[in-house]
Amino acid sequence: MASQLHVQVATLEIDPSRLAEYRAAVAEQIEAAVRAEPGVLALYAVADVSNPARITVFEIYQDRQAYEAHLKAAHFLAYKAKVEPMVKSLTLTPVTPVVLASKAYLG
Amino acid sequence: MASQLHVQVATLEIDPSRLAEYRAAVAEQIEAAVRAEPGVLALYAVADVSNPARITVFEIYQDRQAYEAHLKAAHFLAYKAKVEPMVKSLTLTPVTPVVLASKAYLG
Repeated sequence: MASQLHVQVATLEIDPSRLAEYRAAVAEQIEAAVRAEPGVLALYAVADVSNPARITVFEIYQDRQAYEAHLKAAHFLAYKAKVEPMVKSLTLTPVTPVVLASKAYLG
Repeated sequence: MASQLHVQVATLEIDPSRLAEYRAAVAEQIEAAVRAEPGVLALYAVADVSNPARITVFEIYQDRQAYEAHLKAAHFLAYKAKVEPMVKSLTLTPVTPVVLASKAYLG
């Protein structure tokens, strides 16, 4: 099953003056996506300790289709429009699982 | 609770000629850690699609103490010794959670 998952790592540089707004917006979007979209398995957003404006999001979708559906979801489109002026750069790195182990699902 | 978690992102460059060995070793270590150590909540190891020798590990521990205990666990020490000649570089980035949402725990 793991080979069908769609996994990627997003790295963002946020305008430091709008970081609080960005954090609120991404938290709202992520919570909505994981709650409402069956194929969004996990979205983990973290900030570098040494540079809190550098955000990394580790993203696990059930499959490629679930990711494409996510890109069209209303909460995602609203988030993209809202944060567009706050995001200085965005890099998406497609990855393949080596091992995804956690205490609960995906183990 | 989320504020007490210890979270970090490890980025490794592996000797391409030893990649299969490295993948087996890290999978064994991660599965042992998540199974045996109560404070190791999740270890997600992935390989870049464009450069499979570039490995990223997204690591979630219950707290700093759990991470320090992990560094002393027999399976981790055995892994470190085994992979030392395979790892060309290792960068550890300490991060703080913005939001960690998944279908199961940590939501």
